[in-house]
Amino acid sequence: MGGASGTEKHPWKVMNTLNVIKIGGNVIDNSEKLHEFLEDFRALKGHKILIHGGGKIATELGHTLGIEAKLVDGRRITDIETLRVVTMVYAGLINKNIVAQLQAKGDNAIGLTGADGNIIKAVKRPVKDIDYGYVGDLDADSVSARTLDSLLQAGLTPVLCAITHDGDSQLLNTNADTIASAVAVAMSSHYDTSLIYCFEKRGVMRDIDDDSSLVPQIRSDEFEGLKAEGVVSGGMIPKLHNAFEAIKSGVREVYIGKADELPLLDQQNFGTRLIP
Amino acid sequence: MGGASGTEKHPWKVMNTLNVIKIGGNVIDNSEKLHEFLEDFRALKGHKILIHGGGKIATELGHTLGIEAKLVDGRRITDIETLRVVTMVYAGLINKNIVAQLQAKGDNAIGLTGADGNIIKAVKRPVKDIDYGYVGDLDADSVSARTLDSLLQAGLTPVLCAITHDGDSQLLNTNADTIASAVAVAMSSHYDTSLIYCFEKRGVMRDIDDDSSLVPQIRSDEFEGLKAEGVVSGGMIPKLHNAFEAIKSGVREVYIGKADELPLLDQQNFGTRLIP
Repeated sequence: MGGASGTEKHPWKVMNTLNVIKIGGNVIDNSEKLHEFLEDFRALKGHKILIHGGGKIATELGHTLGIEAKLVDGRRITDIETLRVVTMVYAGLINKNIVAQLQAKGDNAIGLTGADGNIIKAVKRPVKDIDYGYVGDLDADSVSARTLDSLLQAGLTPVLCAITHDGDSQLLNTNADTIASAVAVAMSSHYDTSLIYCFEKRGVMRDIDDDSSLVPQIRSDEFEGLKAEGVVSGGMIPKLHNAFEAIKSGVREVYIGKADELPLLDQQNFGTRLIP
Repeated sequence: MGGASGTEKHPWKVMNTLNVIKIGGNVIDNSEKLHEFLEDFRALKGHKILIHGGGKIATELGHTLGIEAKLVDGRRITDIETLRVVTMVYAGLINKNIVAQLQAKGDNAIGLTGADGNIIKAVKRPVKDIDYGYVGDLDADSVSARTLDSLLQAGLTPVLCAITHDGDSQLLNTNADTIASAVAVAMSSHYDTSLIYCFEKRGVMRDIDDDSSLVPQIRSDEFEGLKAEGVVSGGMIPKLHNAFEAIKSGVREVYIGKADELPLLDQQNFGTRLIP
């Protein structure tokens, strides 16, 4: 973030700041919301990387083409037809429209998959009980921080979609939250990196029905207590767990909040802030 | 090309060489041909930029989606639905599969539209007799040679599809031959640049039915004579005219030949070579 220098981690040098921001379907699917979000994104200080998920467009296109979502034991499968659809929609339609909009707002965006510049090399998920198809998993060496850094140094803003490759010609559908986390961890050796997840809610709420009950900050040692209290429950548990793992791996802080409150980020006042 | 240093143009410095290579639908549509071409492309010496056209996949997808090719007075129109389809197919499916294949072959490819990094800013074709829709025209300032150069300097191989933008959020369908020419002209201030068009034939042929009648080289002052003789006729006339215009604007040489003969390029023995 703006003022911080990350001197605790690397006392011998002051690193530049980097915000790695992930948006999901709730922003992508609403053109007005997306437009406003991109305006706020552009206005943020410092270096930035945007990661976007899919949204309903891929499902709708698949439906029109007669390719229905494949589920095995309730899990979504990416067969070769579905991979074609998500490659077209994520890497083509959505990614390039976001880039064109950011360019119009004066941000020198560059849209990429993980195949481009070998930025994210994944491994096709091994078949155990379920064959997930063309889905990529990431490991500690997946992200090429050097290439992303050279793009940032050239004044470009990388916009990554949720498609990666295996280095052997195969594109792979990959979870956008996982990409955001892996990118933030990898970049934290070059930058003082914040990871920001935008989702439907304002952040972690003490009372789900009370918009003013936002928990502004959680330290890692408070996580277990909040789980026991039931403040963090359901889908928020793995989300926060992964966030604290990213922090353990070098990310300075993780924010979880609502896309339309992004302007608060420069004041470190966005959503729920997770710190070591 | 390999041995040349471009000392005539810029006697005070030796420039690196750059090959700007365009492939069309005849390569794109045939996966085996594409695979072999990319193998040959990878093996070429020096810096490279690949520009690819569309092919039948966009037409087929449009057909499946019930979006038929629009023609007005025999001219193809890009309406908003067609633009969505070509953005998905060119910038998504085709571009990212080419990139993934080049990566597998050890070439650090990066796939781009003209919107990415503001590399090619076009102007929506003005409506005169015909409204061509979302089609982009290029001018002398359209290509950002600086950004392409910074990618090349980072060890990346740009792979450009035939989508550009207007700088005001609008993506535009743009002729791939025109992009190739504009990119080569713009890059010729930074590199000793060759422009290579791959198409169905071996090059300019004295006898269309005799594969051994290839004209290996044409100087600009020979062009009129070959037109008068009928050796250059039909669609080859504008192709060669545009090629000689590119040479006048700084490109070292233009080659026109068959994709599967690309390995001959390093010996300056590919197809028909056009020189000043």
